[in-house]
Amino acid sequence: MSMDLVISPLAPARFPEMPMVPGVRLATAATGLKYTGRDDLFIAAFDDDATMAGVFTTSATAAAPVLWCQEILSLGKARALVCNAGNANAFTGAAGHRTVKETAAALADAIGCAPEEIFVASTGVIGEPFDAGVLTRHFSEMFAHPSASWEEAARAIMTTDTFPKGAFARARLQGKDVTICGIAKGSGMIAPNMATMLAFLFTDAALPAPLLQALLKRAVDESFNCITVDGDTSTNDTVLLAATGKAGNDASLLESLQASDPALTAFAEALNTVCGDLARQIVRDGEGAEKFVTVRVSGAPDDDGAKRIAMSIANSPLVKTAIAGEDPNWGRIVMAVGKAGVPVRQEEIAISIGGIRITENGAVVPGYDETPVAEHMKGREIDIAVAVGTGPGKATVWTCDLTHRYIDINADYRS
Amino acid sequence: MSMDLVISPLAPARFPEMPMVPGVRLATAATGLKYTGRDDLFIAAFDDDATMAGVFTTSATAAAPVLWCQEILSLGKARALVCNAGNANAFTGAAGHRTVKETAAALADAIGCAPEEIFVASTGVIGEPFDAGVLTRHFSEMFAHPSASWEEAARAIMTTDTFPKGAFARARLQGKDVTICGIAKGSGMIAPNMATMLAFLFTDAALPAPLLQALLKRAVDESFNCITVDGDTSTNDTVLLAATGKAGNDASLLESLQASDPALTAFAEALNTVCGDLARQIVRDGEGAEKFVTVRVSGAPDDDGAKRIAMSIANSPLVKTAIAGEDPNWGRIVMAVGKAGVPVRQEEIAISIGGIRITENGAVVPGYDETPVAEHMKGREIDIAVAVGTGPGKATVWTCDLTHRYIDINADYRS
Repeated sequence: MSMDLVISPLAPARFPEMPMVPGVRLATAATGLKYTGRDDLFIAAFDDDATMAGVFTTSATAAAPVLWCQEILSLGKARALVCNAGNANAFTGAAGHRTVKETAAALADAIGCAPEEIFVASTGVIGEPFDAGVLTRHFSEMFAHPSASWEEAARAIMTTDTFPKGAFARARLQGKDVTICGIAKGSGMIAPNMATMLAFLFTDAALPAPLLQALLKRAVDESFNCITVDGDTSTNDTVLLAATGKAGNDASLLESLQASDPALTAFAEALNTVCGDLARQIVRDGEGAEKFVTVRVSGAPDDDGAKRIAMSIANSPLVKTAIAGEDPNWGRIVMAVGKAGVPVRQEEIAISIGGIRITENGAVVPGYDETPVAEHMKGREIDIAVAVGTGPGKATVWTCDLTHRYIDINADYRS
Repeated sequence: MSMDLVISPLAPARFPEMPMVPGVRLATAATGLKYTGRDDLFIAAFDDDATMAGVFTTSATAAAPVLWCQEILSLGKARALVCNAGNANAFTGAAGHRTVKETAAALADAIGCAPEEIFVASTGVIGEPFDAGVLTRHFSEMFAHPSASWEEAARAIMTTDTFPKGAFARARLQGKDVTICGIAKGSGMIAPNMATMLAFLFTDAALPAPLLQALLKRAVDESFNCITVDGDTSTNDTVLLAATGKAGNDASLLESLQASDPALTAFAEALNTVCGDLARQIVRDGEGAEKFVTVRVSGAPDDDGAKRIAMSIANSPLVKTAIAGEDPNWGRIVMAVGKAGVPVRQEEIAISIGGIRITENGAVVPGYDETPVAEHMKGREIDIAVAVGTGPGKATVWTCDLTHRYIDINADYRS
């Protein structure tokens, strides 16, 4: 990167103080594959077999590591995951698949397991094959040190991110204390159905693989799939959740449960908390973001329709540039509602910004005073609420504004 | 507008020298509704009843004038159309509908016809009601002058446009020479299914209303519905085609024909030419546009799928900023193909930029030399071609790059 990336003004004050997760060891290294002077390789190794769940990009041009993870996920077991930043190993043809296999094989050798127990993720530039050796020659040295910290791990997977992203939560499961820790990266190419984002989650809970997968899917739908930076979807999106089982709860007693079972509520809520926190941190690091925007839609025919309207607003370049300009241009919200392809009752559309009602009965409220709305637009946190009058559906999504910095960053990413 | 809009570097050298269309009289005036020092009101009046066809926005929050036009279109007759720029009369509730009705009634009075023979269009800011009197008080004076020119008319409907847009073509129909002239506006909020764009087309041909409508629909699908600037769809999009019948051909002999009949081919091609020319001019005036981009997709399952892939590429902020940065970042094209939701064969995706093949067999071509592609990216006209290997479907769409000027213009549009 030739570009000097200043830390997003929306960043949290500091990286959280996160506990280690029993059974997980972290390691990082600097390969020089793309970046100099920073770590760009991350390994999480598990002391014993961990149960693994994963959710991946819906892209028809998914990258080689994604295809590998999807293939081995049905085995449900993992001994490690390895991730490099700077090169996505996407659209790299046969060479890309070879790189993944050689990476998995080398790490499996170092650990003493099967290659199919090694999950692989990559993020960065698309279409430039690289040799596995760039990564694998660091593996033995990486295991010679004590575990790296969560912050070091979060930093090693960054690309255009301006701050490392971590979150954790604790819950009770079967009378045991369990911990969930997660790190994530992603700042551009973020859209529903997961866009260039990686999130790696770890828990010491013991959970049957199908249940772990169901819990992760639900958490992702309400977090990473509710954020958008630019509406672009990546070839490499990956969310992995490894459960080491070191907390000592008895997974066999959970075999027959649904994800919605009350016995799992505390764990599910903790997982949702971690995923939601990481997802919103990704938005706060949206490329060039100056404002964090929450879009709430209610009154749609169903929740799916509400989400489509909310995403239409959150992805509209005209809405996002108006927010960047601190212009309370609510007419563009009307436009974005209209183009979403969801039935609405124009004469009932109610728009609020910053909690201030702007429209009712399909027109601006009588005597509308823009002053407090304009004041709200000057802040860092923008709230948009829209009711559309056709049903009980509701949704909340998070996005950021569209600024000059987005263009600065993306017109010159590869150089 | 506080902003000084320099003429787009992609603008045609000059406004075309367009012939008048027999039976059509043009008039413009300056109302001061939003702009000062320029005309912002346009009327095209027809000496006798003209046949009218129209295609409108698909927005669920369509503006009052659009709803009015849709209502009267079934009558198929027109004596005039009136358009104001600067205020869209969209999301203006009951007041907005009253403004349209009063505008139509006043112009009908001045001409001596029914209000239902007056088509109304508006473009500009959303959500600010205005009194019809702002427009209607100019009507009598506007008919006191000889016809305005096409260029004056095209200028009177501009909003953030930086140049007036006109195009014309001639054809033979039933042994008669006929003329088609059109003007258009639009530079932002442009997306498929017509976005903030207006196009008014006029011909002296005589055509039955259903046939005129069918011909217009086909022409719009291959022109205005194949362009995108920012993926945003407007509340006010309107394309109207008035046929005065002054050319002297016999419409009654055409009653039984389909739009695809060979007897209509020359007229249909002329109409497509005018619509295509105007549509591409709108892209050339895309807000902040520095480069005109043609995206061709082939090998999709069908034409619709090809268009979805092409639009996914053309609307991707990451692709558009890369083009702005003259960066031949074809990996982002792979990303945009992948997210389109259309089946593709990754191992057969072939991408070319500027006619230079970059990928084959799902990876970059061996020994790929970026130099000529980088050279092409420095030009004003960028050609992207993608084959996806799953069928015979093909499509071409036109867009522009995403630059700092887009944000400058849209972060401050209302001020």
